[in-house]
Amino acid sequence: MSKQTTESIRVFALGGVGEIGKNMYVVEVDDDLFVIDAGLMFPDDEMLGVDVVIPDISYLVENEERVRAILLTHGHEDHIGGLPYVLQKLNVPVYGTKLTLGLVEEKLKEAGLIRSAKLKLIDSNSRLKLGSTPVSFFRTNHSIPDSVGICIQTSQGFIVHTGDFKFDQTPVDGKQAEIGKMAAIGHKGVLCLLSDSTNAERPGMTKSETEVGRGIAEAFEQTKGRIIVTTFASNVHRVQQVIHAAIATNRKLAVAGRSMVKVVSIAERLGYLEAPDDLFIDIEEVSKYDDERVAIITTGSQGEPMSALSRMAKGAHRQITITENDTVIIAATPIPGNERSVSTIVDLLHRIGADVIFGHGKVHASGHGSAEELKLMLNLMRPKFFVPIHGEFRMQHAHKELAKSVGIREEAIFLVDKGEVVEFRNGQGRKAGKVPSGNVLIDGLGVGDVGNIVLRDRRLLSKDGILVVVVTLNKQSGTILSGPNIISRGFVYVRESEKLIEEANELVTETLKKCVTENVNEWSSLKSNVREVLSRFLFEKTKRRPMILPIIMEV
Amino acid sequence: MSKQTTESIRVFALGGVGEIGKNMYVVEVDDDLFVIDAGLMFPDDEMLGVDVVIPDISYLVENEERVRAILLTHGHEDHIGGLPYVLQKLNVPVYGTKLTLGLVEEKLKEAGLIRSAKLKLIDSNSRLKLGSTPVSFFRTNHSIPDSVGICIQTSQGFIVHTGDFKFDQTPVDGKQAEIGKMAAIGHKGVLCLLSDSTNAERPGMTKSETEVGRGIAEAFEQTKGRIIVTTFASNVHRVQQVIHAAIATNRKLAVAGRSMVKVVSIAERLGYLEAPDDLFIDIEEVSKYDDERVAIITTGSQGEPMSALSRMAKGAHRQITITENDTVIIAATPIPGNERSVSTIVDLLHRIGADVIFGHGKVHASGHGSAEELKLMLNLMRPKFFVPIHGEFRMQHAHKELAKSVGIREEAIFLVDKGEVVEFRNGQGRKAGKVPSGNVLIDGLGVGDVGNIVLRDRRLLSKDGILVVVVTLNKQSGTILSGPNIISRGFVYVRESEKLIEEANELVTETLKKCVTENVNEWSSLKSNVREVLSRFLFEKTKRRPMILPIIMEV
Repeated sequence: MSKQTTESIRVFALGGVGEIGKNMYVVEVDDDLFVIDAGLMFPDDEMLGVDVVIPDISYLVENEERVRAILLTHGHEDHIGGLPYVLQKLNVPVYGTKLTLGLVEEKLKEAGLIRSAKLKLIDSNSRLKLGSTPVSFFRTNHSIPDSVGICIQTSQGFIVHTGDFKFDQTPVDGKQAEIGKMAAIGHKGVLCLLSDSTNAERPGMTKSETEVGRGIAEAFEQTKGRIIVTTFASNVHRVQQVIHAAIATNRKLAVAGRSMVKVVSIAERLGYLEAPDDLFIDIEEVSKYDDERVAIITTGSQGEPMSALSRMAKGAHRQITITENDTVIIAATPIPGNERSVSTIVDLLHRIGADVIFGHGKVHASGHGSAEELKLMLNLMRPKFFVPIHGEFRMQHAHKELAKSVGIREEAIFLVDKGEVVEFRNGQGRKAGKVPSGNVLIDGLGVGDVGNIVLRDRRLLSKDGILVVVVTLNKQSGTILSGPNIISRGFVYVRESEKLIEEANELVTETLKKCVTENVNEWSSLKSNVREVLSRFLFEKTKRRPMILPIIMEV
Repeated sequence: MSKQTTESIRVFALGGVGEIGKNMYVVEVDDDLFVIDAGLMFPDDEMLGVDVVIPDISYLVENEERVRAILLTHGHEDHIGGLPYVLQKLNVPVYGTKLTLGLVEEKLKEAGLIRSAKLKLIDSNSRLKLGSTPVSFFRTNHSIPDSVGICIQTSQGFIVHTGDFKFDQTPVDGKQAEIGKMAAIGHKGVLCLLSDSTNAERPGMTKSETEVGRGIAEAFEQTKGRIIVTTFASNVHRVQQVIHAAIATNRKLAVAGRSMVKVVSIAERLGYLEAPDDLFIDIEEVSKYDDERVAIITTGSQGEPMSALSRMAKGAHRQITITENDTVIIAATPIPGNERSVSTIVDLLHRIGADVIFGHGKVHASGHGSAEELKLMLNLMRPKFFVPIHGEFRMQHAHKELAKSVGIREEAIFLVDKGEVVEFRNGQGRKAGKVPSGNVLIDGLGVGDVGNIVLRDRRLLSKDGILVVVVTLNKQSGTILSGPNIISRGFVYVRESEKLIEEANELVTETLKKCVTENVNEWSSLKSNVREVLSRFLFEKTKRRPMILPIIMEV
């Protein structure tokens, strides 16, 4: 590879740095622009009423003619969940492995986009030439099968994106990460590595998924009654191990929960799950079997209140109600932010008297490599420059420290926020400005129409409710023809507040009359007067600040 | 103590079981009724706009003449925070140790209740006779000084409440838990033990607070720049250890954050904190000193957005702005539910480039005993009956298992929910019905006026906002005189939705006209027609369900 060139390479994240979720990275090699992943994120507590969050892709839309492909590393929601929105604005080819595309297809069918989408199947041995840029892949281990890292060839060296990865020496499907291939890439020369920072703060190595299998098998062996297992639907290897445990203990297996049913059916159809024909039974048939001859695998490992597990625990599931004779295996750990809802479901299960087997100890392992694995990746790739990605800022920071510990110079490590561009020219890297980036909020059918003002209003409404004050005035004289009517919602229970509302009513009437006498009958100042007087009065009486909405009708 | 008696003892929790927070337990010995603690809880995510939650005390109010005392175990908010509300309805004597009452006094001053309150100072050696019942105490170790357990003497044996406790062999103030006294109580005969279940799921022993001191001292020694330490304000021992570390490294110490300032001043005044006169400096003076000669101790360890630490990190604090030269020591761990906000502040500090020392490893220890300590307490007390308290249900459950492991019969262990009464007669215990119990929500000045309807409305408003539809009709003819006016808040950004609102307007006008023609001009059916038509229209167009509030004015 020539060292003297004016080729420009730009690397940046539109999502996935400074946060967990909505991964989307961009690599530009002169005119060829590659998007890696198109994920979504679930809203935080401040984003009231929002369904999902995706990255701002206005930069991509502006440069659509240069976008050669969206390359997918694996099929998790935070890597593919944004596709239905992105493809509406940007109809470019999407490359992914078999299981990844299987999950994408399902998503695009639901969104009515499957006909127009250009899905291209690859495997870890595929070699593409996109625009004038060669692109290849390497297999990794992760908590979903068929995950890959991506290798983009440039005249200054490879740009390598690891995807999400761990090094599992005993993977469930026997397919180890392609370490030899990674070493060869490193040997040929990596200009820049983008690597998964999720577990950079954890020392040592992440546990093998096979160990989780042993934990689940033991739990099955030791349990007399019915077993209900919950895990992430997309963790196909774990589902496979539950299948093994069910077979070994002579239990039938029923599948519950929309996304579990969906993933199991896709994974089975595509050959990622192996099960004898007579293993699965319908959820309706569970009651026909003795408790010790049946197990149920279901969604709900994050304590989602509407999930099948939560409904089973609350007696709100049509077929299954959890009792004190059941054993519930929660083969997952709470995603940050879900600790409380998981704790609620665990508590509820204990109240019922069910046996609960939960968490990290034996029945869960992370899909992301810990410190030693991240260092191994760095040592295999020996990159000239390093950009830690996929994590909150403190994880990126911890990953930077790991990189320094294996000999990467501090100046060659870029901690980037969303939109921050790292540019490479003549083998030299530097930060080079920003592209537009941010959160696009999706609420119902609206993409991006919920902005700061709407959220601020929802926040206000959620805190102390609203008071609507309506009055009909005579257009000419300004005399009150009807009202004022005061209606409140979410402010205070009406029966308790009759007197308060009565007093408020008098106050508004007085204010309006005074305004008219003083000839302040321009609507806007009438309204602001009413709002101000009423707000002060209510705060004095209740120490609350409901939103006040004065409406003046004229006849 | 006689074995044959008809004395009736009733024990129950009004708060603190099946939850973390608002601890309040009741022990009735015939006519003498004792309340142990009167805590508050912070609202969960579903309790929109609510400030704090306290137990329903209607049972106590009904039996006021029998309430002999409120006995306080220690000064944490989840044990004393409900007092300002409880004492308004129930003016009974309150017993507590010096620091506990110091904190209570401050609270009652703020609430304007200090004059009427009957505060009674005790120490761990006090012996009281309340009504006809002897009450004594024993000292424990906890994450606040001056914590005690309570021992109520009855003819059937002692009723013992441990309060919150750990066994710290090297407590910061040298005052060990009174194990000898506990053993003596156990020897005399405990009818029923109520014991802290918080850490029942954790194996082993909880770390000594002194070890945390070493971690903090080391951090101070190794830090060149300015140090900012945050911890729970009430953890006076930890504050003392920060003081030691500051002295040892020749730093001045400034105190920031309202509750930290308050607790430090109370604890110093009452002799629980020792510091040389010239140690403390005003927060305004910090800038006068070299970075390596100053430390700041502040609130904000839970990532509270308005706390001093958060404001310092965001550049919104008047005197202090955190920079990349600072080291921030977060000597705390997130309380369940606060994981995300703590993670946000840690991330922000890393973005700034500050050094962050965080959490369990070296600079925090729990105040609650782990499994081995809970077993030690059970073995000391050797109770006939056992009620695990203070914890979520799964912690109570784990505590039950520990009790079984040290030989307490399963039938002698009562897992209780709020309000569930355990009754003892003739030395025999059994569950005996329920007393009223529940959550009382406090919002501003309102105590209990925010109920399910108000919360449901706030929830609806927070999800998709509100649409108010106002129209003025002629009383006789029903013709439209003005409107319909449609005003929305929190629904959709107005500029994006002009066309939508216009269409909605036409639809409403049409609906109203049709209703009038069909003589459906009773207001309630007019309103429900408008609501229904509009709701369907908006859901079709946006897949959202804002609250719709039709208001009809008549002239």
